[in-house]
Order: sequence, then structure tokens, then C-alpha cells
Amino acid sequence: MKTKEVLYLKIARSIEDQIQADSLKLGDKIPSVRSAQKLYNVSLNTIKQAYLELESRSLIEARPKNGYYVSKSAQRKLDLPSVTKIKASSREQSPQDLVDKVFGAIANKDVTQFALGIPGQNFLPVAKLNKGIINAVRERNDGGTLYEPVQGNEQLRHEIAKWTLVLSGKITEEDLVITSGTMNAIFNALMAVTKPGDGVAVESPVYFGILQAIQVLGLRAVEVPTHPVYGVDLDALKKVLPGIAACCFVTNFNNPMGFLMPEDNKKALVELITQYNVPLIEDDLYGNLYFGGERPKPCKFYDEAGLVIWCASVSKSMAPGYRVGWVAPGQFKERIIRQKIAQTVCTPSLYSDVIAHFLRYGRFDHHLRNFRNKLFANYLQIQRAIEDYFPDNTKVSQPKGGFMLWLELDKRICTEDLYDQAWVRKMNFAPGRMFTQHNQYNNCMRLNYAMEWTDRVENDLKILGKLVKNSI
Amino acid sequence: MKTKEVLYLKIARSIEDQIQADSLKLGDKIPSVRSAQKLYNVSLNTIKQAYLELESRSLIEARPKNGYYVSKSAQRKLDLPSVTKIKASSREQSPQDLVDKVFGAIANKDVTQFALGIPGQNFLPVAKLNKGIINAVRERNDGGTLYEPVQGNEQLRHEIAKWTLVLSGKITEEDLVITSGTMNAIFNALMAVTKPGDGVAVESPVYFGILQAIQVLGLRAVEVPTHPVYGVDLDALKKVLPGIAACCFVTNFNNPMGFLMPEDNKKALVELITQYNVPLIEDDLYGNLYFGGERPKPCKFYDEAGLVIWCASVSKSMAPGYRVGWVAPGQFKERIIRQKIAQTVCTPSLYSDVIAHFLRYGRFDHHLRNFRNKLFANYLQIQRAIEDYFPDNTKVSQPKGGFMLWLELDKRICTEDLYDQAWVRKMNFAPGRMFTQHNQYNNCMRLNYAMEWTDRVENDLKILGKLVKNSI
Repeated sequence: MKTKEVLYLKIARSIEDQIQADSLKLGDKIPSVRSAQKLYNVSLNTIKQAYLELESRSLIEARPKNGYYVSKSAQRKLDLPSVTKIKASSREQSPQDLVDKVFGAIANKDVTQFALGIPGQNFLPVAKLNKGIINAVRERNDGGTLYEPVQGNEQLRHEIAKWTLVLSGKITEEDLVITSGTMNAIFNALMAVTKPGDGVAVESPVYFGILQAIQVLGLRAVEVPTHPVYGVDLDALKKVLPGIAACCFVTNFNNPMGFLMPEDNKKALVELITQYNVPLIEDDLYGNLYFGGERPKPCKFYDEAGLVIWCASVSKSMAPGYRVGWVAPGQFKERIIRQKIAQTVCTPSLYSDVIAHFLRYGRFDHHLRNFRNKLFANYLQIQRAIEDYFPDNTKVSQPKGGFMLWLELDKRICTEDLYDQAWVRKMNFAPGRMFTQHNQYNNCMRLNYAMEWTDRVENDLKILGKLVKNSI
Repeated sequence: MKTKEVLYLKIARSIEDQIQADSLKLGDKIPSVRSAQKLYNVSLNTIKQAYLELESRSLIEARPKNGYYVSKSAQRKLDLPSVTKIKASSREQSPQDLVDKVFGAIANKDVTQFALGIPGQNFLPVAKLNKGIINAVRERNDGGTLYEPVQGNEQLRHEIAKWTLVLSGKITEEDLVITSGTMNAIFNALMAVTKPGDGVAVESPVYFGILQAIQVLGLRAVEVPTHPVYGVDLDALKKVLPGIAACCFVTNFNNPMGFLMPEDNKKALVELITQYNVPLIEDDLYGNLYFGGERPKPCKFYDEAGLVIWCASVSKSMAPGYRVGWVAPGQFKERIIRQKIAQTVCTPSLYSDVIAHFLRYGRFDHHLRNFRNKLFANYLQIQRAIEDYFPDNTKVSQPKGGFMLWLELDKRICTEDLYDQAWVRKMNFAPGRMFTQHNQYNNCMRLNYAMEWTDRVENDLKILGKLVKNSI
């Protein structure tokens, strides 16, 4: 036993040395268990133990069905972004013009779209979905020309409830309403629980779509300081809770910061909003795109009072353009169904069939597993590229899932100016100012890494890093 | 010349006699010009003159490419519905529960759905649209998985602008925003031009979907007396205009009354709202379903100030379930696009392709012509059936297009009670109380006649007439 112990530790130390010496870099794949067995000429079990040891010390990370990688935490060179204290006095100003400018350019196919909020096409199961559409058209007697029930396609709701394993037993098809994407779920949830002039607590930085919905509905966004690893600051939230009508948070793999709110914080958050009787609109559209071992729970899991309005969709993992989302509105279900009738009568029927069918027969888990593997590999790539090409004082988020990276650059950098420089070089990104109504995050940017990792992408990041360096 | 004159008048009088004697009944097709020529052994021109004479006296009606029919006005036995004076004092009460009850039953296929607001499936070009979907899936590289531009598919907007011949030159693709059906266009228009608490003028009776949208948005519906032939009473409207934020009218083939607002009234209406600077949301979704010689103009045609928000869709003529509609928002375009982003990001892409393609290559005009012919034939059928089976004091609307008939029954009849009796006999209809927020129209009902005219339908109307007679 003792020899064996020493042996696996010896192997572990040898790999650790390689990592420290930079001969194994962040994001590199290390040999598979079987290759390592041959390499070190030891038993399979010894290698497994060695890797377990390295994993327990966060030096390497297992990707299910995809082997082991040098962990990001193994040699994190750059700091995390800072938590911004929101100055209550600072004048609120919508980033609308900037959002329009950036959004107006996303159709340009010549440009490396680091600004996009959706995955590249080659990450989506397009061929399978196309077959699904053709089947659905043939199977439906009416070809999807007639109305759906207002609450939404029953089969789709059933499949969603089934696939929401993490909430299993907590929601059924009866608890779900189909919406036109997650944005439509959030918009409807906001409408259901607020009236114009009400305050809504949001994270800061906050996904600009949430800011837009708040503005369109005549509400006030109340930005709450948000930690890049733990999420919204619960003490700060507690102070504003008595004066607001709702919270709207992206708890799992936050947009733009990528954090996963820890379980204890989720529990505490739900307790808090229950205590103050303030509904929580939970935007959980990235929840299935985890890098860890399992799908994290949403706050909805801890909700006993029906105050958590859980919103999600297939937009980030399968088909953004289908506009298929859903909401589990808790105690606000009737109100949301009423709004849906008045807003659009019902959602288009055919897409619901296609997604329901894909969830049922399309090996959704297989698609997600592949997709997550690609995203994680890309995350390691972009993390490395930032370290390689950007200044050392660049602060970078540590996403636990999803496909967004948040950078905080040197204070002297204005990413709005940088945007124009990058655009000339045929790339874009989302400037930090888009993610707040205050005059802040001007030195920040959000990068999407759900794209094929080509030489061009690598080179674009190199150029972007140079532009940053030249701007200081 | 004189002999000839006498001849055609003689022929006209002979046909008139047949109509009066009931040997030619309302809705009967009269011999074609060529058959009549042989029958009377006269010149083609003489017959044409005779028919022109009969037409000018509203005894017969020409259906383009479909011959001549005995006109409904030739022997109208029943009165028109009355104009209801809205009692300002009467308590407002939403017909929501009733709407829910009726809507909750529309999926039942065992029931003759006189309550439905959409055409039966066999009136829709399902096979052609299905082919369109399959083509669109194959042609699109992304299979519709990616986002559309926020304003909507450009090709679709182009085709809609092209097909809106009646507005030709007045709108281009730039003036249109694609929405999720007409209801979504109206909802967005209401949102764009009002704030909670504002008043919105509507017709009375009013389409209940408009009432629902007004209620969901926290607005006040102001029902304006409405004539069954001329539409909203402009004098009455003028009195309320100073106190309201918008008008929302169904001007062409009104739902539920089927009237076509006369051109002069449309002009006067647009002048009036322009004078008071009150936006008019014009619900023109039935405009293509005319029984007359040409597509009537919408109020939008007379709008110089950009105050008319023109809303329409393919829901009533091609594919209700596709949820493809549009709005020409005039001066409110930017606001409506902003709302659309916040509400749903964009509309699904594939359906837009399919409709654009159908408009371009699918012989849309051919489909509409057939559809209109069927609707007109059905209208004559239902008009006759009501006269045959319902009590003589039944008042009935005189639709000029669309597929809705409005009945005003004996004051002692409660159509809510009648609904339950009809339901037991496997048929339904829309009780009048659904079309108002006041305690009125309790003796009215709306019947949809866009369905295959079978013996069962005929028999159902016979039974319904008996139920009415027994309820007096």
C-alpha cells in the first residue's frame, strides 16, 4: 500500500512540476488515463489516484467524456474584476445608443462577433432540427397553421418539465407557460409583478436586455453591487429590498460575469425575498451550460412561496431564432397567461413540436455534453489568449459555465473608443458601458467565446490585446 | 335604341319578379351572362345592361370571376342591429370569465365552432405552406436557428409593402415592423402611445382581444356608439377625444359587426384624430376579405401626420398559428422597435421566409380570390339560414367582408344561458357580453361562418334557432 501511495503521489508531483514550469499550460489536455498508464508503466488505478489527487487540488479538471485538462485555477495569472460600489448619486443614463450601435452590426458576417450573445451556428444542432421541422410539418394535420393553447404546446411543456431534472418533482407541465424566448418570459414576469415607477433590483454589471425591458416598462433599475464569484451582494440587496417591487437576476453562469451563485447564497437569497415578499425573476437560460460535474440548481428549487419566477429557453443551447422559451411563474401564472393572450394570443406551434420532439428523441443530453465540452475548451483557450496577449493588469472573470468572459482593463482604457478601433480590424465586442445605467464599466468588455476556435480568432485576440496595450 | 332599352328593362323586371316571388332566393346564383343570352335569345350587351340595372338597384351582386348572385339586400327580411347608447354611469366589468370559458373550449373538435375567430383549416393553403416550410428549411443555411433583424425579415417586409397595393407608394419595407400576429401589433401600439390610466376609444361592440389588451396594460376602454353599417359614431367620438390617449378601431369588416366604414367617414375620422393629435390604432386584419369589387382603403391611406398605426397579419387569411403580423407605426416606429427588442428580441425567422415566399411565388391573389368566394357563398348561406330558422324579430348585421355575423335577439334572450344549451348540442358561439365591458349585448351573439358548409352546420343553425325560439 505504501509503495503504491508514494507512486501515485510521485506521478502527481511530476505533472504538477510540468504545470509550474509552464511545459503544461493552462487549458492543455493532459494524457488520458490509459496513455498515462503506458507512459508511467503503472496500473490504471495508480494513474486514477494520481489524477484524483491533482483534481482535488484544482490543478487539473475532468471534463466528462473528454479527459483531463490543466485547470484554470492551476495557474491563474490575472486578477478577478473588482466589485463596483454603485454611487446612488450618479446620474442614471440608459446605454441605449451604444446598445443600438453594437446590435446594429451583429449581422455582419465579415466580423469576428465577440459581441454576440448567442453561440455560433456550428455549435447548434441545425441538421437535426431541420429534420425535426420536416417531420413536424408532415405529422401535423394542420401544418402548424392553427392556434396553440394559450399556455403553450402541452407536449413541449411535458418534455421541459421532464428535462428539468434539477427541479424534478417541483414543477410539472401545468406550472409552465411557453414564451417567445427567455426575454419574453422576463418581460412578462416584469409586467406581471410591477407597475410603472416601481424599482427592480438587478446585478451590476447587468445584462442590457434586462435594462431595456425595465426601461420600456417605465420601471427603475436598482443596480446592486455584484461579486465576480459569489454574485449579488446580499447585504446590499437587503437594504434596497423594502423599496423595490421585484428582483431580476441571472444566477447560473451570469451574463456578463459568468459566475455561479453558490448554493448557500441562493438559499439565503430566496429566504430574503420571501421575508420581504418581493418576487424574484430568475433568468436561468445558461443553466445547462455548466463546466462542473452537474447542472446547478436554480433559486426556484428553494422557493416554497411561489415567489420565484423561473425563466429559461433553448436560445443559448439549441436555436436562438426559434424563440422558444418558458416561464414557471409560481403564484403569478394566471396573470402571465392573461398577458400572453392579450400580447400575442399564442406562440407559433411548429417550433414547439420540433423542440418537444428533440427533447424526447433527439439525444438532447448528448448534444449538451458535446456543446459543453466545446465551450469549456474554448474558455480555456480564450483565458490563455487573454493572458498571453493582454496587459498584466487586465482583470478577468472566471466563468463556471456559459460562454461569456468579462474583462476589466486598465482604468485609462475606454472600451467605447476601443470598439471603433476593433471594428476597423473586423472584430467587435460588447463594451462595458452597455451593462449599466451609470457612468461606469467604461474600461470593461464582454467577449463571447462560443465560436469555432480558428487561427483568425486567435489572431484577432492578439490584435485586440495590442490595441489595449497601445491605448494605455 | 328605344326597343333595346325596353328589352333589357323587361329582362331585369322578369328577374326581379322571380326574386320577389321567392323563386330566386337570397344567395342563389343567377344564370351567367352567356346562359342568360341564350335563355332570352338577346345580345350579350342587353343582358349585361339588364344585370347592371339589377346590380345598381342592389337586387343582384357580382362576385368577381364567380358570376352573379341574388343580393342579400334584395330581400332582406331582418332588421339591422341597433346602435347602443353607452350609459356612462353603468359599471364597467370585464367579460374575462366568459371569454375564458368560451376560449377554453375552442380546441374541442366535436363541436361546431361558431365561436372561433379564425377560418376553418380547409380554407387555409396548408399544403402550399407546408411545401414552403420544407423549402425554407433547405434554403436557409442556419435552418432558422439564428436571430432575425429586430425590425423583421427584410424580404417579408418588402413583399408586404408590395402587396399592400391599396397603400402603394405610401409605405415601403422601411415603414413596417414584423410582429407576432395582429394582436401583438395592437398590443405594442397601445403600449407605445399610452401610459397606465389613459383612456382608449373603442367601438361598441368591441373585439374582446382589444378589451383584454387594454385591461392588461392598465388602460381604460371608452366604448363609443357604433353603427352596424357606418361604424363608429364620429360625433360621439369627437366628444371623448379630448380625454383619451388613443383610438383602436377595426375599420374594414369590423369584428364583430362586419361593417365597412365608408370612405368619407374614414377621411373624417383621420381629420378628427389629427386635429386632436390622438393616435389611431387601425386593426385592418380582415381588409383583404372583401365581398365587393376591391380591397377597401384603410384609414392609414389618409394619414399625413403619421398618427395612424396600421396593424395587420396573415392570421385571418393564411395561417393563424404562424403568428406573422406587422405594423406600420408611423411616427411611433422607433418606440415600437425598442419595445420589440425588450419584449422578445426578434420574431422567429422561418415563418417569415415562408410567408415572404408565398407572397412572392404562391399566387396569393389566387388564394385570396378563392377564399373570398367561399366566404361570400357561406355568408349568403348563413344569412338565409338565420332568416329560415330564427325568429322574425332577430336583427342581423350585414357584413361587407370577413367572416363574422352579429345577431341581436329578442330582449328576453340571454345568450350566456343559450351558450350552455348550445354546448350540450355540440355547438358554440361567442355570446354578446364578451364584446363589451358594460352590462349590455346580453341578447347578442357572434357567429363565425368561415367553415365548410355541411348538412351538420345547416342543422346546427336550425337547432340553434329552435333554442332561441324556445327561450322567448
